[in-house]
Amino acid sequence: MNWRIHSQSTDLEVLLNEESLFFTGNGYIGVRGNFEEGYPAQAATIRGTYLNAFYDIADIPYGEKHHGFPEQKQKIVNLIDAQTIRIALIEHGKEEWFSLFAGDLLHYDRFLHLDKGYTERLVHWRSPSGKEIRLRFRRLVSLTEKELFIQEVRLEPVNFHGTVKIVSTVTGDVSNYVDDQDPRIASDVSKLLSVTDVRMEKGIALVEAATSRSGLRAVCATTHDLSVDHKRTGQQTTHGVVSTFTFSLSEPVVLTRKNIYMDSLRHGTDLIRQALQAHARLQSVTFPDMAEQQTQVLRDFWQQADITIESDRELREAALLQEGIRFNLYHLLQSIGRDPYSNIAAKGLSGEGYEGHYFWDTEIFMFPVFLFSQPDLARQLLIYRYATLEEARIRARELGHQKGALFPWRTISGSECSSFFPAGTAQYHISADIAYSYVQYYLATRDLDFFYDYGAEMLFETARLWVDLGHYHQGQFHIHEVTGPDEYTCLVNNNYYTNVMAKYNLKWAAKMYAMLKQENADRLHRVVEKISLDPEEVEAWLKAAAQMYLPYDAERNINPQDDDFLNKKVWDFAGTPADRYPLLLHYHPLTLYRHQVCKQADTVLAHFLLEDEQDFSVMKDSYDYYEKITTHDSSLSSCVFSIMASRLGYQEKAYDYFRETARLDLDNIHGNTKDGLHLANMGGTWMAIVMGFAGLRLKEKGLSFAPSIPEKWNAYSFSIQYLGRLLHVSINQQEIRIKLVRGEGLSLTLYDRPYQLDATKPVQLNIRKKSRFPGVEAADDIL
Amino acid sequence: MNWRIHSQSTDLEVLLNEESLFFTGNGYIGVRGNFEEGYPAQAATIRGTYLNAFYDIADIPYGEKHHGFPEQKQKIVNLIDAQTIRIALIEHGKEEWFSLFAGDLLHYDRFLHLDKGYTERLVHWRSPSGKEIRLRFRRLVSLTEKELFIQEVRLEPVNFHGTVKIVSTVTGDVSNYVDDQDPRIASDVSKLLSVTDVRMEKGIALVEAATSRSGLRAVCATTHDLSVDHKRTGQQTTHGVVSTFTFSLSEPVVLTRKNIYMDSLRHGTDLIRQALQAHARLQSVTFPDMAEQQTQVLRDFWQQADITIESDRELREAALLQEGIRFNLYHLLQSIGRDPYSNIAAKGLSGEGYEGHYFWDTEIFMFPVFLFSQPDLARQLLIYRYATLEEARIRARELGHQKGALFPWRTISGSECSSFFPAGTAQYHISADIAYSYVQYYLATRDLDFFYDYGAEMLFETARLWVDLGHYHQGQFHIHEVTGPDEYTCLVNNNYYTNVMAKYNLKWAAKMYAMLKQENADRLHRVVEKISLDPEEVEAWLKAAAQMYLPYDAERNINPQDDDFLNKKVWDFAGTPADRYPLLLHYHPLTLYRHQVCKQADTVLAHFLLEDEQDFSVMKDSYDYYEKITTHDSSLSSCVFSIMASRLGYQEKAYDYFRETARLDLDNIHGNTKDGLHLANMGGTWMAIVMGFAGLRLKEKGLSFAPSIPEKWNAYSFSIQYLGRLLHVSINQQEIRIKLVRGEGLSLTLYDRPYQLDATKPVQLNIRKKSRFPGVEAADDIL
Repeated sequence: MNWRIHSQSTDLEVLLNEESLFFTGNGYIGVRGNFEEGYPAQAATIRGTYLNAFYDIADIPYGEKHHGFPEQKQKIVNLIDAQTIRIALIEHGKEEWFSLFAGDLLHYDRFLHLDKGYTERLVHWRSPSGKEIRLRFRRLVSLTEKELFIQEVRLEPVNFHGTVKIVSTVTGDVSNYVDDQDPRIASDVSKLLSVTDVRMEKGIALVEAATSRSGLRAVCATTHDLSVDHKRTGQQTTHGVVSTFTFSLSEPVVLTRKNIYMDSLRHGTDLIRQALQAHARLQSVTFPDMAEQQTQVLRDFWQQADITIESDRELREAALLQEGIRFNLYHLLQSIGRDPYSNIAAKGLSGEGYEGHYFWDTEIFMFPVFLFSQPDLARQLLIYRYATLEEARIRARELGHQKGALFPWRTISGSECSSFFPAGTAQYHISADIAYSYVQYYLATRDLDFFYDYGAEMLFETARLWVDLGHYHQGQFHIHEVTGPDEYTCLVNNNYYTNVMAKYNLKWAAKMYAMLKQENADRLHRVVEKISLDPEEVEAWLKAAAQMYLPYDAERNINPQDDDFLNKKVWDFAGTPADRYPLLLHYHPLTLYRHQVCKQADTVLAHFLLEDEQDFSVMKDSYDYYEKITTHDSSLSSCVFSIMASRLGYQEKAYDYFRETARLDLDNIHGNTKDGLHLANMGGTWMAIVMGFAGLRLKEKGLSFAPSIPEKWNAYSFSIQYLGRLLHVSINQQEIRIKLVRGEGLSLTLYDRPYQLDATKPVQLNIRKKSRFPGVEAADDIL
Repeated sequence: MNWRIHSQSTDLEVLLNEESLFFTGNGYIGVRGNFEEGYPAQAATIRGTYLNAFYDIADIPYGEKHHGFPEQKQKIVNLIDAQTIRIALIEHGKEEWFSLFAGDLLHYDRFLHLDKGYTERLVHWRSPSGKEIRLRFRRLVSLTEKELFIQEVRLEPVNFHGTVKIVSTVTGDVSNYVDDQDPRIASDVSKLLSVTDVRMEKGIALVEAATSRSGLRAVCATTHDLSVDHKRTGQQTTHGVVSTFTFSLSEPVVLTRKNIYMDSLRHGTDLIRQALQAHARLQSVTFPDMAEQQTQVLRDFWQQADITIESDRELREAALLQEGIRFNLYHLLQSIGRDPYSNIAAKGLSGEGYEGHYFWDTEIFMFPVFLFSQPDLARQLLIYRYATLEEARIRARELGHQKGALFPWRTISGSECSSFFPAGTAQYHISADIAYSYVQYYLATRDLDFFYDYGAEMLFETARLWVDLGHYHQGQFHIHEVTGPDEYTCLVNNNYYTNVMAKYNLKWAAKMYAMLKQENADRLHRVVEKISLDPEEVEAWLKAAAQMYLPYDAERNINPQDDDFLNKKVWDFAGTPADRYPLLLHYHPLTLYRHQVCKQADTVLAHFLLEDEQDFSVMKDSYDYYEKITTHDSSLSSCVFSIMASRLGYQEKAYDYFRETARLDLDNIHGNTKDGLHLANMGGTWMAIVMGFAGLRLKEKGLSFAPSIPEKWNAYSFSIQYLGRLLHVSINQQEIRIKLVRGEGLSLTLYDRPYQLDATKPVQLNIRKKSRFPGVEAADDIL
């Protein structure tokens, strides 16, 4: 049961959400979980197929355009639709079209198989005139053949043994979804794609289409195999190909439909020829074949990424959480880009919310999951950012910086796509977030090679940005006019999060410089030459890091979010009715900015990422302070509060926040799952367990754990890749057990003590209920 | 000479600017100074005719729309064109069309007659084939008949005595001007008007047109009188009427063209009938008749508003300044709205820059000129704001305020039209600026009646806003997240200007409440009832005023512009090339906001408006501080610096800044006069003299002067209306002389001493070179 997501709903609103929940993808292709046969007229549906990073360009409109506002943005394109398969039962020339919303639905199950990697619908249907058949729809986007989206329809007669007609369509007549009232969804042109070629060649339906302005092209090439004798006709329209199959249904019949997607970003110019070649290669492949390959890939994936939980006391709840955890990890795998063009969009490939853009979500909320489970994929995420470095340099110049690189707040191809700079371009922290992920990658791999080739340049250019951006004031390094993670507080001075992350960025740029110099001065020299780096700059990084101003309020013993935060009026939470959340949809930005109210973790997130920058008591008092004024209107918030609650010994809170993350999309907690899944939150679920409950930290001195366990659980376990090893960690109410599954022995820290882990002998010790972290002792009384 | 603006330029770029400089208007109609006969093809020209407040509605586009962003804006409409008159000389059927850019221009003069109220062109033209004629074009928009725009063309034969054809057009085929790169100009749709009716009736050409979305309608009805026998044809097109006159030119011929404009805002529904009636009434009127009326109106105007300057030493400069002063005052008179629908647009009626919107420019930079020269017109400006009070209440609710009224940053009909809130809606100070103008009106008229009817409600509702907006912090009243006048520093806490103006607003609301209660409690009660005012609110106003936090930096002895201003990096002025100004066109807002750099006077303006809120030395040190970091990229800046330089004894600076204001448009100093005149700066010229050099202040204790005189001048003089009196003030290097021209005796303050002014005897005393103001003594050593 734990490996299947199950639904029996035919409620149209639920189904709209399920289009996201049941999407199938592989980081390249994403297909929303739309019904092959369609929906009733007027039903809300967002029928979507996307290729990661396949974008068109749209103008950004401004009532009042100021210098440096981006004029254009990229937008993910809703691509050629290959989902549509309609089925009619025919008697006396009268067609009855199959639909869940006509006739009687005698049985209906919908599954997402997390272990097998496909989705499935099982239907027992009685037509309005009483004809009964059983249907099974299966679909998968292959994790081994990246261009393949394969569907299978199985029809089985019950009381009907007559003529069946199947109409299968490939069409480029598609549009993007728009909503002009929600700032999180695009409000502009919806028609981005135009069909440039329609063909039938060797029984293959081919539709080629191009975007209006980005000059990208894509092809969808579709084949059909039907397991029974049939009559077939193919009709080419201006937009696509309609293939019709007529046959007599007397025994179970299987239609296999294989759709190959290719695009000009990855596959060069002759897309049609290549698509035909791919089909030739895959000619004999069946759905079960691909499902088998899929299962193998997922077996490996789950071995490294799965988290299990066990509970006696709260069986039902534990099952729901287990389901949520796996669901979330599965979708992360389905969404991650695996080439230099692509990354993980805020909604993955499950919908069009945030227009297919990549944000800091990747580095802070998803990168860690891959770093510790699939480090090769994590590396791809870094390579993508490196591929956009030149764009980031250009952007820094546009923002008036003489040196350095400023990464865009939201983008596909590397240029800034945010039209609202207070909560967009002003979030300079994204450059530090990216640098942070590079450092984490170094710490998890010690792969200096990567830094000569990519990482050093990234760390150096981001460090340069901070030096240019900030200035010294009364002997301390200040950073003004930026926005931290909390989007309800914009354009501030000395945002604690930004400053402390910039400090880390600066420190590590200098440290990396020293390491690379020592390891291979010539190789470093090539980087230095390339970017004309003056060694005095490295000194300047160290100085800025050392003198970085980190706001601290002695009276409250907290880190203020910024210079002015504590002087503001506290939001009137008592006077705010529940239906006014999320606040951003009900209050003007000025109203929000004017108050102490946070959309999401900001200082609290900094305390998680860089816990050694302040005392435990400051983190604790800060948490207590900010928790009261945080709405968690962003889906990036609860996981951070869960992790820090674990860190501070607030076990119940840690568990409650974790629960919110685990099923945020499954339960549509934010009410907008229809627009796509909340991928960052999905990463946050993993982090809430591994970094929250188990207290994993990765620092220069190595890997450490400080495990705790929620009261309601008997045990939980997960695996970690680290320095080429695979560790398995299991924790129950009594003890923690870390086993070396693969690789050589290594040392790690448990609670505050070093342990040597060998292949022969797991580390095993009692779980601590208090004082889990070094330096916590002083606060233990309070806990 | 001093009463004429003269040009002989035929340079196309100069002519584009002259379209603004030579515009003719009366506060209702505005007609740009376009040539009747047109320009060469491809020449840049903005052919425009506007009715004040006659707007269409346009959607405001957003890449990312947030709650409370206005969805629509008003836009001034380029209206039916009645300027066009083309003239052909005909021989043997061959037409030679008159143009300054064909044939030879033997003589050309262009005049704006500031005393007579019309513009004039005198041309001696030789056609390409050698035909010579003289032409005189005159036009005026009547100051006595508000719907009338009258033109006159006089043709005089020189060597040509043949057939002349005149083609005179009325057309609704017009567009608005767009520029998608300059944030100060609209970038959206240009086609706002569509013609709904075209007729010829009783020899009158009638064109009626309607806006697309605002539902406003306007009519232009045109008659022609030709002083010679002629053949006439009239042709109706879909857009308008073309009237053609053919006659033999043997002696001077005069064509008089009268255009009546009416619109549905002011003239109800049956516009055509009313326009015909107006023509019937004006049937016998000639251009000389109207010019005579115009001269009379202007005689009165100049009697009350004129400023004269005399100089031996710098004759040429003084003449240029004298010209600039009168030019500026004249255009203020031409631009001021005189009904509850209209106000003074940022560009008056001279162009489309800022889309015909009204800003705080009115209250702070133009209202004072009218208050002291034409108080009835000043009153109209207040009435306009009162007419938009309900919209301001609605806007306050949209911005999350439970009570009070928030006036829009830019508007025509009263709703917020700013799409960029950091330098728009966030400029809350506009509500205090409006309140300030009401208080000034009270002090200059003591007209309590007006306050029962209008003023009290305005003061009370604005006071309410501040109480709702701000909060108490450590015993002081703080105002967060607003933008002061300086648009290079946005979204700040405790902007000194805003706080001190809010304090004045609050104090005067309470004071007015007390005065009105004492005068007539019943009448006040009706206001109180209407807005459900609780007497406790009045207490809250007094408390907030008393405890208003006004930032002060002891180290520098200045008022910081806001809480964070002094912590910022100072702009690198030395490293900024001249071609990077104005900065807003070359730097991203974040770059500007991050630095100590001011677009315009902010704290310095507060020190002018409310000089009693701080010591002289603070004002002086503040001036010294801010002057170094102010770019004056706004045309609202130099006049304020001039006034405060006078106040502080910086006589040379005062003079230099004044010079910049006096000829800002005449010399196209900001390079964008083509888009319209800088009306606020024009008011600033008057203020720089009257409030700067002569040191006029209007406070609760009465009117005061503290005159100085620029070294280069022999003398200057001006008049002032005050409490129903007309005073004439003349100042030379030795003495000041104040004469009561009209009205009863009164007391006023000169320097720091009270004087009684009687009809019989002017006040006359020596001019002070130092210590002009009370309380300045301490700083005199420095001066």
